[in-house]
Amino acid sequence: MRPYDIILKKRNGGKLTKEEIEYMVMGYVNGEIPDYQIAALLMTIYFKHLDKDERAILTEVMANSGDRIDLTPIKGTKVDKHSTGGVGDKTTLVVAPLVASLGIRVAKMSGRALGHTGGTIDKLESIPGFKTTLSLDKFFENVNNFGIAVVGQTANLAPADKKIYALRDSTATVDEISLISASIMSKKLAGGADAFVLDVKVGSGAFMKTLNDAKELAEAMVGIAKSHNKNAVAVLTDMDEPLGTYVGNSLEVLEAINTLKGNGEPRFVELCLTLSAWMCYLAGKGDIEQCKSLVKDSLESGKALEKFRDLIIAQEGNPKVVDFPEEILPISKNIITFKANKEGYISKIDTEKVGIACNYLGAGRTKKDDNIDHSVGMKILKKHGDSVLKDEPIIQLYVSKNSNIEEALKLLNEAYQISNEKPVISNIIIDVIK
Amino acid sequence: MRPYDIILKKRNGGKLTKEEIEYMVMGYVNGEIPDYQIAALLMTIYFKHLDKDERAILTEVMANSGDRIDLTPIKGTKVDKHSTGGVGDKTTLVVAPLVASLGIRVAKMSGRALGHTGGTIDKLESIPGFKTTLSLDKFFENVNNFGIAVVGQTANLAPADKKIYALRDSTATVDEISLISASIMSKKLAGGADAFVLDVKVGSGAFMKTLNDAKELAEAMVGIAKSHNKNAVAVLTDMDEPLGTYVGNSLEVLEAINTLKGNGEPRFVELCLTLSAWMCYLAGKGDIEQCKSLVKDSLESGKALEKFRDLIIAQEGNPKVVDFPEEILPISKNIITFKANKEGYISKIDTEKVGIACNYLGAGRTKKDDNIDHSVGMKILKKHGDSVLKDEPIIQLYVSKNSNIEEALKLLNEAYQISNEKPVISNIIIDVIK
Repeated sequence: MRPYDIILKKRNGGKLTKEEIEYMVMGYVNGEIPDYQIAALLMTIYFKHLDKDERAILTEVMANSGDRIDLTPIKGTKVDKHSTGGVGDKTTLVVAPLVASLGIRVAKMSGRALGHTGGTIDKLESIPGFKTTLSLDKFFENVNNFGIAVVGQTANLAPADKKIYALRDSTATVDEISLISASIMSKKLAGGADAFVLDVKVGSGAFMKTLNDAKELAEAMVGIAKSHNKNAVAVLTDMDEPLGTYVGNSLEVLEAINTLKGNGEPRFVELCLTLSAWMCYLAGKGDIEQCKSLVKDSLESGKALEKFRDLIIAQEGNPKVVDFPEEILPISKNIITFKANKEGYISKIDTEKVGIACNYLGAGRTKKDDNIDHSVGMKILKKHGDSVLKDEPIIQLYVSKNSNIEEALKLLNEAYQISNEKPVISNIIIDVIK
Repeated sequence: MRPYDIILKKRNGGKLTKEEIEYMVMGYVNGEIPDYQIAALLMTIYFKHLDKDERAILTEVMANSGDRIDLTPIKGTKVDKHSTGGVGDKTTLVVAPLVASLGIRVAKMSGRALGHTGGTIDKLESIPGFKTTLSLDKFFENVNNFGIAVVGQTANLAPADKKIYALRDSTATVDEISLISASIMSKKLAGGADAFVLDVKVGSGAFMKTLNDAKELAEAMVGIAKSHNKNAVAVLTDMDEPLGTYVGNSLEVLEAINTLKGNGEPRFVELCLTLSAWMCYLAGKGDIEQCKSLVKDSLESGKALEKFRDLIIAQEGNPKVVDFPEEILPISKNIITFKANKEGYISKIDTEKVGIACNYLGAGRTKKDDNIDHSVGMKILKKHGDSVLKDEPIIQLYVSKNSNIEEALKLLNEAYQISNEKPVISNIIIDVIK
């Protein structure tokens, strides 16, 4: 077997075998195959794609390249949720306790912020005392005792994907469905869950800007899961505006708590209920209609809020945050207002720019080692499609002394379009792919 | 400027600017841009190609990366000939003296054998005493005094092409018209001639296996020449069988001398006359019909043969080779016969395999540092389309004690197909592209 022949085969439209994919991926990880041959293969895949079988194999090879977490110490069906990433996406903070309150064990490993999107772990760390690092034993113990644990990823999951992703990132081969789906699913597979609910974001704040691309990605990921005998449901959801009312770490925890108290922004509530219902469905709690009413009841009864309190106690956070979030959470008191520059409807939002503006305030990371300021962020006063008067506030910016306010406002000005016609607004739930 | 953005631009169908191409090529040569980004760009070019302007720019950037030979010390129009490479291609040995005998100055830098094709310099070194290395001053002096000089390439021509070619060779990005044409023409451009006759071989022994590909390559090369205000004519010629009667170093010199004496194999003679005529045409000796009759006269009158003798004397070879080639040239006396395994017509020849079989005898190189045995080779007794009886000799193999005769015969057996129907044989001259 020679790397050259494998590149040539794919380039000429051939189908790669398990042996060939394993040889290339592991040869690269072991340093036996040089990066320029892998770069050529990746660009070939960009143009010729991988079919269903090749994608499943690539996913498995990458999943097998590092630790594979064994979740058998946890009883019952383990359902994981994954979001392809958006701006203001605090869904896990609501969905995890909501689902756990129905007796489904939630063993969640989450990521940190990078680029224009936030990370669940950074958000949870806004809660004073909250520990996001647990030993694997303690993690399992908490899940079995409290039904829920949410920790940062410490295991060495899919290192092959990590190495290949870095190469894709410098060779313009990131945005290809086979490679994206295999990358995501290799980490999910290594994470050890039995089933997955995949929240695939579509729109200006998402990685997938068009519905077609998002649909293709959703189908690819569900296909990979099924090739590995894992159940999966992908929900396509709108990301043409920031999700909910708040963006920023403390502010998103505040919004999650408000939502668990029954005071959520309607579109965000609908998203949380839908994702939770599909998780219940995959855990075998009934048909989808039954699951929808189960999760609705749990939210309305306050059981989900109590489960969130359990989570905080179990991970040594200050539980008073549930009752007095605005007092306990570090939220900046310095507020600046971004205003409408004319009268009309908010017709278009470049949501990625809103996310980057939040980074300028200090809420995110542009490099892996950047520090995060949990106190800064935005409150969205006017949503996509709302009417505004000239000089009416659109966003309140919570800023700190390190915020680059000028750059943030400049980006917001670029991000928001106001026009005379009321735009058509997509439902938050666009489609479900099983 | 970032390599990433340039790869992305080309990948998305954009047109690269001079600055972008220069930045990538020279960044790679200088070690500032890593090979994996160039590999990704090359694979992108494989799929998206370069247009006329981009090809011309790439050619120029590569030509400018090393020495550019200044041929102005030589009077008159300097016309260079280039062959894309074939088996038994001793054309330069006839064409160079033929053209020089008409007063056109021939300042030829030629290559050595590599892969399944031979090299003019190795062939000339079969002549005892013949020097293929001259100082640039001596080279110019010989051209001005004798009208002809043929030397090996010592200048550092297009080192960027050399580095990029090595990367293409390990990333399956060799066979793309833009890259091939820019690679060839960058070296031609650096060589300093005013005009070029390009012999583009088509068929089983050529790099271009199909007429369409060859035509595309020819048009690309002529286009690049014209973009640099250089005249060029491409002649598409048949390479579905070894060229002429002999393959091997001494044997091809023997055939060249026989041809210059008027005893050439008809198809080979036609090729030599055609290429020579186009060289005369580009040197301004008249219209193509006038040039054809000029070169025919020169061959028939023996003037071309005398010019070959001048060349040998000027470069210190033994001039007796012209009169007694079979005595002076090192030609093996050990002859083995490859015979027909059945009766019929020679319907197909995998000419590349014939070239490789010759290498097994010792006539060529598989690695750059291999030694060449000038005495070995083949005499082709039966040509493409000839009828044969069972056990009738097809080829005489001139072998030495280091020849791998078994492998050579095995390859010849694979290379030759004999069938009941007489095949259609292409003309040696297929097309001319100006």
